[in-house]
Amino acid sequence: MRHALSLAANGPSTGVNPQVGCVLVDASGVIVAEGWHRGAGTPHAEVDALSQVTSAKGLTAIVTLEPCNHQGLTGPCSEALISAGVDSVVFAVSDPGERSGGGAERLREAGVQVEGGVLVEEASEALRGWLTAERLHRPFVTVKWASSLDGRAAAADGSSKWITGTAARQRVHEQREQSDAILVGTGTVLADDPSLTARGDGGELMPHQPIPVVVGERAIPAASRVMAHPRTPIITGSRDLPTILDQLFARGIRHVFVEGGPTLASAFVAAGLVDEYLVYLAPVLLGGERLALTDIGVGTIGDARRLSIDRIESLGDDLLVVARPANVSTKKGT
Amino acid sequence: MRHALSLAANGPSTGVNPQVGCVLVDASGVIVAEGWHRGAGTPHAEVDALSQVTSAKGLTAIVTLEPCNHQGLTGPCSEALISAGVDSVVFAVSDPGERSGGGAERLREAGVQVEGGVLVEEASEALRGWLTAERLHRPFVTVKWASSLDGRAAAADGSSKWITGTAARQRVHEQREQSDAILVGTGTVLADDPSLTARGDGGELMPHQPIPVVVGERAIPAASRVMAHPRTPIITGSRDLPTILDQLFARGIRHVFVEGGPTLASAFVAAGLVDEYLVYLAPVLLGGERLALTDIGVGTIGDARRLSIDRIESLGDDLLVVARPANVSTKKGT
Repeated sequence: MRHALSLAANGPSTGVNPQVGCVLVDASGVIVAEGWHRGAGTPHAEVDALSQVTSAKGLTAIVTLEPCNHQGLTGPCSEALISAGVDSVVFAVSDPGERSGGGAERLREAGVQVEGGVLVEEASEALRGWLTAERLHRPFVTVKWASSLDGRAAAADGSSKWITGTAARQRVHEQREQSDAILVGTGTVLADDPSLTARGDGGELMPHQPIPVVVGERAIPAASRVMAHPRTPIITGSRDLPTILDQLFARGIRHVFVEGGPTLASAFVAAGLVDEYLVYLAPVLLGGERLALTDIGVGTIGDARRLSIDRIESLGDDLLVVARPANVSTKKGT
Repeated sequence: MRHALSLAANGPSTGVNPQVGCVLVDASGVIVAEGWHRGAGTPHAEVDALSQVTSAKGLTAIVTLEPCNHQGLTGPCSEALISAGVDSVVFAVSDPGERSGGGAERLREAGVQVEGGVLVEEASEALRGWLTAERLHRPFVTVKWASSLDGRAAAADGSSKWITGTAARQRVHEQREQSDAILVGTGTVLADDPSLTARGDGGELMPHQPIPVVVGERAIPAASRVMAHPRTPIITGSRDLPTILDQLFARGIRHVFVEGGPTLASAFVAAGLVDEYLVYLAPVLLGGERLALTDIGVGTIGDARRLSIDRIESLGDDLLVVARPANVSTKKGT
């Protein structure tokens, strides 16, 4: 299963479909085929692995996610495994999908031996974004901000280039590339005119670009850089976050990267709609009024939004704190 | 020298005198005596080590600080080493004191072989508080604050018990104990009525207590807890920080711990009078107006106070960021 998990990571982390890996092993435990999913419309991991053997009789399929049970862009994996004649199937995480779930039951009905829940914690963590989106029917939400150690996003005059250093800024571009969409408020577009592209350290565009989404009711100038983005921007004209997330989910967006500014980040935090926090802290003090977060609806200390820190990375002189909400499930969009 | 440095750490970190260690070695490098300084009025490290031998002829004294050359509460170590007949003296850090310096020169005049600068960086770091105070003629200033990850010291209603957890709070008590004085603003006394004692985890008073110093012009109620502190509090009636530091230095205070609130911490930062930052960050978001630092006089990003992070400690769920001003020398008091 551990090998299947590493195969899964070969697939794209963006898009509608999860990263899944599969290995076929014979009765003595020797791997005879490997597969992984390369994105929507391409064969699922199970089918990818099965394509490498003439017969799967006597083999066990080890797969990171419960085989799907529905006809989408490709056929149901449960049927493919049955037709190929596998003896047994071992999987990690159950498929929470209303249409895609039920594969284990179908396999058992066909006489295939099935065992689920193997390395389920590790696999769930790897599939966290996709599982969250499937369960809540809204995109997984990452909120990122960069601030001084005292929580400021800019100096008194609004200047903020550069609070963080090169390594931290490059890391942000990589995180943009791993998202389906990048969300900014109208205030940030009007004040900073960001290009919202994912770029390499030479300034070149990365292969995958997130769709820029502008949140807020104010109009955006046609000459804004975001309008020249390689992906057609979505101008929502709204600040109704649950509805916006609903619409993005309906368009196949499963992971949004909320990048600014303070008003939008605070709105997501206040609404309890954050699954992952990426807080960049620069070893700098600024003081003043330009806060990275404004009001998040916390009146008293007992209502503080408690986070659970996953890890802290050093990036040049800066710190990246990666965290998630502590002991609370985040909310559905609507 | 490394052994002498570890001996030095046996002495008290508070008070007028530095932590110094000394070893006497014979011609074959074998240690024949050890000494360290136990605080003002007690023998200096060199004299402590010499007291263990009948004659120092043929021996080398290895000492972490240049032997003093003046009559204070005890006699000059340079003379003691000469009388005892040491062959040579090796030391790490030169004594910057106007009166106490010059020991190396005096020893050389008397025919003793002298070598300075051995492990000077390590020894200077260990003596940082004392050296800073001697050079700037003001106490070494540690500023501590605790905040949420977004830089707030309290929730909107002022509640802050407890942003940080038990381990972080206990660490603060240890840091108080290692200081000569603890500084708070009148606002904090009026709002929180803190006891400002250094306490163990059972609430018991620690052996050494810092002198409480109240900064600000407002009057303090006679019934304030700080007035019942085991050390007589110093009520400055002033917010003139350089003058206050001058007066504290004159009273023999070499290390002050600035503990609150936001107004006092910000005044120290704005004045460039911080030698060490202890920033406790709790994995919590609060938003709102109760900032751990207010205005520090930074108008534009180029004027940001850049810090150099010494280390980051995990204390329960909290982080302690230990930092110092980056590439700038902090200012003298007046």
